This record gives sequence, structure tokens and C-alpha cells, in this order.
Amino acid sequence: MGAYDDDDGAVKISKSQLFIGGISIVLCSLLVLSRSNGTLACSNPGDFDIGAYREAALANTPPNIIECAGAEAGGSQELCHLPRDERYGAIGQKGITLWMTGLSGSGKSTIAGALEERLVLEHGKVVQMLDGDNVRTGLNRDLGFSPSDRAESVRRVGELACLFNAGGVITLVTLVSPYRADRDAAKARHGDMGLKFLEVYMNVDIDVVQARDPKGLYAKVKAGEITSFTGMSEDAPYEMPLHPDIDLPNNEMTIDESVDMLMEILTLEGVLVGN
Amino acid sequence: MGAYDDDDGAVKISKSQLFIGGISIVLCSLLVLSRSNGTLACSNPGDFDIGAYREAALANTPPNIIECAGAEAGGSQELCHLPRDERYGAIGQKGITLWMTGLSGSGKSTIAGALEERLVLEHGKVVQMLDGDNVRTGLNRDLGFSPSDRAESVRRVGELACLFNAGGVITLVTLVSPYRADRDAAKARHGDMGLKFLEVYMNVDIDVVQARDPKGLYAKVKAGEITSFTGMSEDAPYEMPLHPDIDLPNNEMTIDESVDMLMEILTLEGVLVGN
Repeated sequence: MGAYDDDDGAVKISKSQLFIGGISIVLCSLLVLSRSNGTLACSNPGDFDIGAYREAALANTPPNIIECAGAEAGGSQELCHLPRDERYGAIGQKGITLWMTGLSGSGKSTIAGALEERLVLEHGKVVQMLDGDNVRTGLNRDLGFSPSDRAESVRRVGELACLFNAGGVITLVTLVSPYRADRDAAKARHGDMGLKFLEVYMNVDIDVVQARDPKGLYAKVKAGEITSFTGMSEDAPYEMPLHPDIDLPNNEMTIDESVDMLMEILTLEGVLVGN
Repeated sequence: MGAYDDDDGAVKISKSQLFIGGISIVLCSLLVLSRSNGTLACSNPGDFDIGAYREAALANTPPNIIECAGAEAGGSQELCHLPRDERYGAIGQKGITLWMTGLSGSGKSTIAGALEERLVLEHGKVVQMLDGDNVRTGLNRDLGFSPSDRAESVRRVGELACLFNAGGVITLVTLVSPYRADRDAAKARHGDMGLKFLEVYMNVDIDVVQARDPKGLYAKVKAGEITSFTGMSEDAPYEMPLHPDIDLPNNEMTIDESVDMLMEILTLEGVLVGN
């Protein structure tokens, strides 16, 4: 039921079905033709392969350096910013990223919150917590929980953490971040920029977090009210770190003991004393 | 030339043209059907309306609050984080965003860099500069310079600035950010979150920045080596602020005088003394 319009090379349709050689496909807002297998698929917006689009965009975007001549030649961004050592010395702290990963209910937010409170209120340090809430309600408001959206979410938070960290902020990331490859990419980005990064594994078994169930989410999963929940369904695995920098089996420790342990590590890393 | 496949509801094609009722359209990797005007358009990947996709994603994504019960009910994120007053008091500074907008060559990076140096080295404050370089080489590496990509870039930097600002960091944004609507949206987000935001207009005429031309970019534009450059071409306008919070005609001032002026404003705003 389409009428060809010569002007813009488009097929105008007015009905809910489009006929191709007598065969109809249901009206949808995106028709995606795959280059690889030559398939024309009718997709809902949610089915559009935004992951492939992003990958292409990340691969293709040329460097957009405008101001920093040093970086333009492939040098470090630091060339055009205050040198880190001078900055860290002046503000009395060094940047670091503690990337806390683990199942929902494994204590990420609780322990990071307690650590933040001690660092800020007792030591006057500048700390930023990046969690599912403050990131997903703002920066990542356009992202859902598909694997490709999770990958983009973790990529953005990794970049965000690099910025805070380079500025001397003690950065606490508390994301489930279930995929190993995504976490490794965030770690690699920190390494490329010469920034401290420690992966902290909230090493708590699935049956413990189910028993904790602070928000009743696991109960909802069992009742079938939530499908596709990390660690509980085939399509949403949690890939535990193989070699975490810090292993934190916090079910065997009090919150204070967990915070003590992390404070000791921060002290050893020299992040509380500047340059 | 399509054969219908019952299994997946897709039309498989093997040739470079798809025939619809005897009318062919050229093979392309994306066929986009607009909901609004019922047009089926053949798009190249670069033509795909990512702006519309993002808008839909931003509008449709449900709140993903998992941890913060207060925020789940529509409350402020602050409920689940350290209260700002306590934080600012402990670290001896308050969060603020100075959003510096202006043409390329209008002094954004130069003045922000000098301000950062004074704040960090003389006052020991934690400062973050978010500029085209450190944002576009990382977080916004997937974005180009189309209006919709610029809108997304400014949206992300606005969210980023809110996070830094809420954590007590003095945040200096130095982006051309040519579109008024995008800057206003960033300002509105800060307002919604009760965060200080000042738009600083680098009020320097186009002929002055062309004369400065620190990177030889305007010369390249005139030579036709760069097309579509902000303020120089129809398709890349610069929309000056109508009511900037701070007007900085820095061509009539030394760098030190510009920095002095901004330091005075930061002092008046009370951001250098904590709670």
C-alpha cells in the first residue's frame, strides 16, 4: 500500500502494513537491514542494534583535539593540564579508583558509603561515589540493562572515574558491572592514563545476598515479578573477577572491619597524603 | 527479489536492490520509517537519526533506582548520599559549576587553566576542568559535531558537572557549546539538583578570535580546508547567551584580571570556605 515519492526517494505508507511483492510485514518504527547476512528485519526501537552502532561510532570518530597541541600529536592529556604531582601535593590527596563489583545486595553501596563518610568527615578528603542511582538517573538515563547498554554504561562510568581520579578525587564506583570484559576495559583505560585502579570484589555468595535481600528484589525474582536479574537468570550472568585486586568477603566481616581494610589499603597506596 | 522467511518474519535479500511493487530502492544498511510522517527512508549509517533515537531513549527509560529507597519515591539523590552541607564543611569548599561558553579562540581554556592553577596551587582546592580535549578523547569519544551529537555531548558534560559539583569539586567547563537550548538544559539540571551554576560568556568578537587564531584554525577555514566551523558557517551557528551570569570581555582584560574577577565571584559565592 505504498506510493513512491520521486522527490525524496522515500516510500510513503499510510497503513499499518507495508506490502513487498504481496508479502506484508508489520509496521514498525525501524527496519534494519543487516550488512552481514543480508536480512531485512522489522525491529522495534528496542531491537535496533545500538551496540553495533556505538561500536562503529567509537571506532570511527576521529580524535577531536582542538586545544591541546601536545595531545594532538598523541601525547598525554596531562601536557595541557596541571601536572598531577603538583596538583596532588597542593590538595593533600591523590586520585584513585576503587571499583566495587558484586551482586545486588553484596554490600557495595553500604561499604562504599561508610568508607566515604570516614574519608570525608574524619579526614576532610574529597570523595565521589558513582553508583547505579546517581549515574543512571543522570548521565546514563538513556541506557537500560541489555548487555550492550550495560557495556556502554560501564564504559562511561570508567571514563568518568578517570576524570575524577586524574583530578585527585578518591573515586568509589559501586556498580554490579557483571561482565568481566567491561570491567577490564575500564581498568585498561586507567592504566593507559597512568591512574591508580583497584578492582574490589564483593565476594558474597548468591545464597547470602538472597538471604539479605535488602530491597526484596530476590523475592520478586522468585515470585516471577522480575525477570532477567543479574546472577538469577541465564540471560543475565555475573562474571566474578578472576584476579581482583582486593577480595572482600564482607559476609564474614562487620562494615567497620571492611572499611578498616580499605582505609589501610588507601594509606598504603599513599592516596591520603598528596604528592 | 525478496524471499519471505516464515521463521523470523524477515525478508531475505541477496541483491543490491530491493524491489517494492516494482519500484526499487538502493540497498542501504538502515531503513528508517518515521512514525511522525509515515515515510520510509533509505539511510546510510551516518544518516541514521541517532538524535531521535537518543531522545526516545531518554524519554522512555524508566527510572532505574535500585538502592536508594528515598529516590525511588521521587526524592533527591541526596537522601542516600552524605548531606552536602556536612561534606562541604569537612572539605573546606563548596561545589560550583562555571560553564564557560564562547567561540574557539575566545579564551575559555586559557582563563580556566589559569584559574585552576590559582585555585589548586595557591588555595589547595580540588578543581576539575572539563574541556573538549579530556571529554572528547574519553567519555564522548563516540560523538561528532552534528547538532544532535553536540546536544548529547553537552547533555553528558552537564550531568558530569552535576556529579563533580555535588561532590564539592569546583568544576570548570570549557566547551564552545554553541546552542543556547543545550546550555540552558545543563543549567536547568543543576537547578533541579540545587547546585550552583554560573554561565560565563567569553564575550569576544569573531574578528578578535580570528586575529588571535592560536591554532591556525580560522586560517584553515578561510582556505577552505575546514568546513562547518562554529561561527564561520551557516550550518554551525554560535548562539550567544542572552543573559549570561558573568560577562567576560576578555579581549579588554589581561588573563590575570579575568582570573581576579572570577576569584572574586567564587569568594562572594562562598565556595572557597566550605559549609
